[in-house]
Amino acid sequence: MEPQKNILSRPVAKRLVRGVTPRLRGAAPRLRIVPLGGMEEVGRNMAVFEYDKDIVILDMGIQFPEEDMPGIDYIIPSISYLKGKEKNIRAVIFSHGHLDHIGAAPLLLPRLGYPPVVGRDLTIAMIKKRMEDFERDSSKRLDVIKINSVNDRFNLGKFRIGFFNVEHSIVDAVGVIISTPQGTVIHPGDWTMERDPVDGKPLTYHHLAKLPGPKILMLESLGATNTSPEMVSEKEMYNNLEKLISAAQGKVIIGTFASQIKRVCHLLEYAKKIGKKVALDGYSMKMNVEIARELGYIKVGKETIIPASGIGKYPDNKVIVICTGAQGEGNAVLSRIVSGDHKFIKIRKNDTIIFSSSVIPGNERTIQRLKDNLYRKCDNVVHNDIMDVHASGHCNAESIKEILRQIKPDFFLPVYANHYFLKEAAKLAIQIGFSKERIFVLDNGSIIEFHDKTARVLNKKADTGYVFVDGLGIGDIGEVVLRDRQALSKDGMFVIIVIVDRTSGKVKGSPDIISRGFVYLRESKELLKEVRRRVVSIVDRAAGPGVEASPEYIKEELRNQIGEFLFLKTERRPMVLPVVIEV
Amino acid sequence: MEPQKNILSRPVAKRLVRGVTPRLRGAAPRLRIVPLGGMEEVGRNMAVFEYDKDIVILDMGIQFPEEDMPGIDYIIPSISYLKGKEKNIRAVIFSHGHLDHIGAAPLLLPRLGYPPVVGRDLTIAMIKKRMEDFERDSSKRLDVIKINSVNDRFNLGKFRIGFFNVEHSIVDAVGVIISTPQGTVIHPGDWTMERDPVDGKPLTYHHLAKLPGPKILMLESLGATNTSPEMVSEKEMYNNLEKLISAAQGKVIIGTFASQIKRVCHLLEYAKKIGKKVALDGYSMKMNVEIARELGYIKVGKETIIPASGIGKYPDNKVIVICTGAQGEGNAVLSRIVSGDHKFIKIRKNDTIIFSSSVIPGNERTIQRLKDNLYRKCDNVVHNDIMDVHASGHCNAESIKEILRQIKPDFFLPVYANHYFLKEAAKLAIQIGFSKERIFVLDNGSIIEFHDKTARVLNKKADTGYVFVDGLGIGDIGEVVLRDRQALSKDGMFVIIVIVDRTSGKVKGSPDIISRGFVYLRESKELLKEVRRRVVSIVDRAAGPGVEASPEYIKEELRNQIGEFLFLKTERRPMVLPVVIEV
Repeated sequence: MEPQKNILSRPVAKRLVRGVTPRLRGAAPRLRIVPLGGMEEVGRNMAVFEYDKDIVILDMGIQFPEEDMPGIDYIIPSISYLKGKEKNIRAVIFSHGHLDHIGAAPLLLPRLGYPPVVGRDLTIAMIKKRMEDFERDSSKRLDVIKINSVNDRFNLGKFRIGFFNVEHSIVDAVGVIISTPQGTVIHPGDWTMERDPVDGKPLTYHHLAKLPGPKILMLESLGATNTSPEMVSEKEMYNNLEKLISAAQGKVIIGTFASQIKRVCHLLEYAKKIGKKVALDGYSMKMNVEIARELGYIKVGKETIIPASGIGKYPDNKVIVICTGAQGEGNAVLSRIVSGDHKFIKIRKNDTIIFSSSVIPGNERTIQRLKDNLYRKCDNVVHNDIMDVHASGHCNAESIKEILRQIKPDFFLPVYANHYFLKEAAKLAIQIGFSKERIFVLDNGSIIEFHDKTARVLNKKADTGYVFVDGLGIGDIGEVVLRDRQALSKDGMFVIIVIVDRTSGKVKGSPDIISRGFVYLRESKELLKEVRRRVVSIVDRAAGPGVEASPEYIKEELRNQIGEFLFLKTERRPMVLPVVIEV
Repeated sequence: MEPQKNILSRPVAKRLVRGVTPRLRGAAPRLRIVPLGGMEEVGRNMAVFEYDKDIVILDMGIQFPEEDMPGIDYIIPSISYLKGKEKNIRAVIFSHGHLDHIGAAPLLLPRLGYPPVVGRDLTIAMIKKRMEDFERDSSKRLDVIKINSVNDRFNLGKFRIGFFNVEHSIVDAVGVIISTPQGTVIHPGDWTMERDPVDGKPLTYHHLAKLPGPKILMLESLGATNTSPEMVSEKEMYNNLEKLISAAQGKVIIGTFASQIKRVCHLLEYAKKIGKKVALDGYSMKMNVEIARELGYIKVGKETIIPASGIGKYPDNKVIVICTGAQGEGNAVLSRIVSGDHKFIKIRKNDTIIFSSSVIPGNERTIQRLKDNLYRKCDNVVHNDIMDVHASGHCNAESIKEILRQIKPDFFLPVYANHYFLKEAAKLAIQIGFSKERIFVLDNGSIIEFHDKTARVLNKKADTGYVFVDGLGIGDIGEVVLRDRQALSKDGMFVIIVIVDRTSGKVKGSPDIISRGFVYLRESKELLKEVRRRVVSIVDRAAGPGVEASPEYIKEELRNQIGEFLFLKTERRPMVLPVVIEV
């Protein structure tokens, strides 16, 4: 799939050779690794490597919010650990172009003074695109060190950098080798062990075993509990997809991730081969294909790719739609097609709809609902429960054991997954004879140092608190705002506005009540009437004859007493917000 | 497991024989089936059977809310279809005691005038318990027809009712036969096909094939897409659990559903056998075991069951804790144990923690988080990814085909699952030679009539809208309130209170602002200052010299202009709620 031959070999640029070879005399500096994200939950992958004042960073990803973080767009790594060290950063290496590896680049690169970025073509192109989406012309500030071949080798400060091939679900994924006199870090980024790749022989990693020790393997371990004996191979998946596409009597609609660029490329070429037309839909899908075409990874043109508006010109059985939204996202293309809101793409009973994607944890019920709606409109809905139409880009338990056997690392650091996957990966290593002392399951912010063939985790940790991005706000949403959002979503809110006559201390007029998300107000007139009555009585009593009550005291009384009353009547606890205005 | 011999056979009560045998002359009435729930999503299972003015109901379940229904406790079936027909209801039959089959009984039985309820011992006991929890002494109003044996046969109006054994994850689950001259309905409730049950031979259903035709099979089809060749058998699961329990060097903590009463019974007996003590924790867990003990289903007493407060008296390796919370529910026992908030149960590294439960769709991320925290505190966390420590109470695709082959129904109605599972179950039936015309995939509220060996789905449908239960409110939360809750959770709210001098039309003082869930106010002083400035200017301009603006107009202006301003500054859209007070 990856047309590597097309990447012209270029001489390594001069600026790469910034460092010098490590000192041989005196105490050698320590190699320090600080994972800033990706060690506790999935996403916001980022790791810092330090050696003798030089810093190299790997990946700058985003994490998607949990369900108790309503309204949050995404989470980025905290970079407080790098404060004051910006000038030491020699480069940021990106393993591949998925958002959990590059998504935070537009926000973090400027804050670190735009250090050089290292990556293969598509990865760099995707970073540039994301920067432009974020702020026009910002990508021009990028200082790019392109990886022209996995055989490229260069120095970044005192680090020696190399690469190796990996299999993953995006073009241009690359494994990274970070060498220092204290140890050689081997990091495949995200990876799978494809036993039957469509474009060649299965990859092996035996050659990495020959790297100078101590070898430190940082291994993405998302598949640590996947013990199913057989993984779906790419070839099987493509065979199934091709069979479905060629046999289809109506349109074929394929929902997948926009990030599955390899798969989309493959499907486009197959469509060209059998003379079907492909309409791509979804902003990120169209953008990614455009980027891949510009780079020459896709050699399919207008004879095959048609706009969605043009599908009416062809018979249904000549049309393929590849679109986003297989996770059930409300506004994505597939949902709009299903709800009938798509301007050009309507579902017919004899269409074939394929979910060529995995289920991201947390999206299960939304996807079930989407499937329910699809099954109502279409007789041929295919997903992985029915047929293997998706192959994971991640390893399984067997592959983790296999790569450990091949690379034979001295130290094993499982990374880039939930904590419990890391622990399970550690167990796998122990199963095949790895000694416990050579395995480190770190947290976000853990600091591990390698020196003289030994490793030590420091007691102190780097700060890695959540940095929430919500709209234009970066890091301005904290626990307080999130807790309020959760409370508001559960029982709504109840604002009481009462005007008090400053001289008499008595309520003037009828208190105003604004409530949302609590009860349907039109059907709760009796309740509101009773609340108003109580508000007046509480305020009048609080002030009392000759007693001057502070607005704070009155508010406190209202909050407590009206809150209790509403709970008694409804067993709900809306957020009660009293406003006392003295006139 | 089910000690049926303990259920004393009683003569069938006289009231059962309410009906008469069906007329033989003249046009026979139609048999009508109306599923009120359970046909589109999982839960709120309930079906209505009508024949010649007699009505029998099967199950009254609740459904748990989707994630876009914040604050909702649960959903019950709408019974508007039964309005005016209450006096025709001969009985409500309950297939088993799980909440998605009995949970709505306390709310619906009173509204239907307390028709008699039919069920086996544990099922009835659980309904009574739920009614008492809901309203003290309400269970005394129950008119109970107990099923003493699956061989019981009796009439309910013109319906002839019978039963058959099924396997499910709760004691006293029963399959129901509803016979009329127009057809015999066979309904296993929830079921699985256990190939190696711990208490006897696998069940078969060949005898049901001999029932008078047309036979209408209503089949719970939750496992329709489960094509994994082997299901975990009960015996394997118990073997694994017993091995873990006997080998444990520390405490064993088992998280499971309180509804898994069979499993809890089995574990209690095993603990007694090997001399370990069991602390049960979680309200529903303790209640269910208490009910099962009262009925004689559990013969384990105080020599084995100890209070959680007493576990300190025994060495860790003699203690088993069985508790709720394996779904990661925030306040349930397991979460409290993990967070260190449990008064008596603390986790040690060498404890064994077992998730003997499936993952309910929608809970994936919460459970992942719970696992992460558990893996931090304990070296032995076991879940189904690691070892078979849970067996599903539901069928798989093979079992669906097998039961169809055994019963040989004339009509097949897949039920009690998401719509797409029903469609997949229909495909399974077609695969084994069932003709399409004899399969009906219905919706909630579909009305199907059987007459003269033919079936027909009517054009009209019964109303089956969501009836939300939130606190004490039943059905008072509608789309409007839910939409508000969603909006509030996303970007919070922003209340602006402005006092206008009635005579001058000018703003008096500084506008008050109350905001929650939008930005952290203390760090947004500049923004608030600017908002206040704009509010004053908008109001003053709206009123203008000599122009009298209505408060409605001013509010509209504030909502739009401040909303726009806040979006411009933050790209968030809080709910803007202006209050204009004239003094």
